[in-house]
Amino acid sequence: MADQTKIIEALRNEEYFYMISHMLPDGDSIGSLLAMGEALQGMGKEVRLFTPGSIPYKYRYLNHSAKVEHEIFDNDPNITMVVLDSSDVERLGIFKDTVLKSKKIINIDHHITNQRFGTLNLVNPEAAATGEIVYDLLEELQVELNESIAESLYVAISTDTGSFKYENTTAKTHRVISSLLEYDLNPGAISQRIFDERSLPFYILLKEALSSIELYEGRRIAVMTLSKDLRERTGATTDDLEGIVNYTRNIEGVELGILFYVESASELKVGFRSKEIDVSELAGRLNGGGHIRAAGCRMQGDFESLKNKVMTEAFAVLKELQS
Amino acid sequence: MADQTKIIEALRNEEYFYMISHMLPDGDSIGSLLAMGEALQGMGKEVRLFTPGSIPYKYRYLNHSAKVEHEIFDNDPNITMVVLDSSDVERLGIFKDTVLKSKKIINIDHHITNQRFGTLNLVNPEAAATGEIVYDLLEELQVELNESIAESLYVAISTDTGSFKYENTTAKTHRVISSLLEYDLNPGAISQRIFDERSLPFYILLKEALSSIELYEGRRIAVMTLSKDLRERTGATTDDLEGIVNYTRNIEGVELGILFYVESASELKVGFRSKEIDVSELAGRLNGGGHIRAAGCRMQGDFESLKNKVMTEAFAVLKELQS
Repeated sequence: MADQTKIIEALRNEEYFYMISHMLPDGDSIGSLLAMGEALQGMGKEVRLFTPGSIPYKYRYLNHSAKVEHEIFDNDPNITMVVLDSSDVERLGIFKDTVLKSKKIINIDHHITNQRFGTLNLVNPEAAATGEIVYDLLEELQVELNESIAESLYVAISTDTGSFKYENTTAKTHRVISSLLEYDLNPGAISQRIFDERSLPFYILLKEALSSIELYEGRRIAVMTLSKDLRERTGATTDDLEGIVNYTRNIEGVELGILFYVESASELKVGFRSKEIDVSELAGRLNGGGHIRAAGCRMQGDFESLKNKVMTEAFAVLKELQS
Repeated sequence: MADQTKIIEALRNEEYFYMISHMLPDGDSIGSLLAMGEALQGMGKEVRLFTPGSIPYKYRYLNHSAKVEHEIFDNDPNITMVVLDSSDVERLGIFKDTVLKSKKIINIDHHITNQRFGTLNLVNPEAAATGEIVYDLLEELQVELNESIAESLYVAISTDTGSFKYENTTAKTHRVISSLLEYDLNPGAISQRIFDERSLPFYILLKEALSSIELYEGRRIAVMTLSKDLRERTGATTDDLEGIVNYTRNIEGVELGILFYVESASELKVGFRSKEIDVSELAGRLNGGGHIRAAGCRMQGDFESLKNKVMTEAFAVLKELQS
């Protein structure tokens, strides 16, 4: 019997579930957790929801998000663990040991790198988001959705696809979203909240990043620089940094975007973004890694010589493209 | 017989078509024009495509966009005019008279304010984009789509919904997009091109706008200021200004965003954006107008006293909300 069938059976037959998602929770992990939690509760199950670390402000308006707990005290290995959107157990942070002690671990995820750490694994890298897999499961379980489950799934799928802009978006993604919108959702209000609205410190950091733009190789490379020091002075959190690196790539004509984030006098974080260039390979040359169009690395040393090293590799990558 | 049926009949039976869309062409008008043009050509019709004014750079990669003409010399009133996405004939600019002289005008649009200037009118304000109406027409005409027609329709619908973020997005919108993606489209590459990529002058203007942020009323109002002078110094075009006003609203906690665009020593353009407040009413108090969450006005006088006038009204609107 395939794992998927066994998972459906377990969700139907078991009574108690702990549902857990990963550290630094994002829209997909939170949306999937809330949707699945509410659906199982509707089926009469006892469900508790957990994330290691708190839920970002913009997702706290979602129904039931206040029920999500951040610590597990009672540690019964007979309770079925449902782990959502987590490629490995390390990403479960403080919950890692609790989960590993459990006799039944249902692992539901869409990351291609998923480590199959569950006793049952449902991993579908074709799915744009874990929320898309949860949608299918709920359909198979014949759960009737409601507005709040639909909104959680909408948030899960829309955030992991950047509002349907990323390459992972498929015909199926839009078909699922079409069904969800039948539950009277307001995509305008949701999107304003989860995509467009950013903190004032984010905009101050963005201004500083834009002020630092340098262009190289006939504007094919754009570089921006930010420092931790600056981040702290503006009152920005790590969350507020999110997405700034994308601005390096989004300038017309730029093929390679680089963000230097100076952590300290001897530590540098580098983010790479591209439209076509394989930046995971570029990051690899500097002992980093990532995806084809979004990658990064960490380096030790003084800023100027590290920057030179990075730029030398960047120029080399562009030259290799031409030859 | 309903106009829709008559339009289907005309599209089936006529041989020659001029297809025209509005001034300052946007993604919906261009995408609808190209999709419908290519489809009718595939049906063996003779079709010529027109826009008053040139096509923005980011849409020129679309198949057949080079075939779009910008002037009409031969003016035969027997040729059927198909006007797309244009709420009134004024928006046709230099083509207005040619269109009005024609004996058959097919008017296809989704704007609620459409003036029904056609001899046949298909106006559906429920459609998120004119591209959605064109999709339905092509289905009714039993035209087999191809990748290039599908991509034009995708661009039409995704741009008019802000990548499915605006309130006009419906379950039907996603259903249509789902069918279009079956034609091997790459939503990642398309979106990077039409949404994320902006010119360097845009980013310089954005930096200047962010540098000018002022907050009022406990951060509920955000104000940014730009001058025409500054725009010209940065080499920015009017296109590059597009969207900057939205940043005023997108700051967390801000309810009302205002962009002052100083045209000259005696002329001011004001843009209003909001999350909930009715800014069309606010703009109306200053002899402007617009939509509920996006409006504006033009004023004559010196900047400081006009700004005071606007801020006084803005404060009043916030006070009225509380009472």
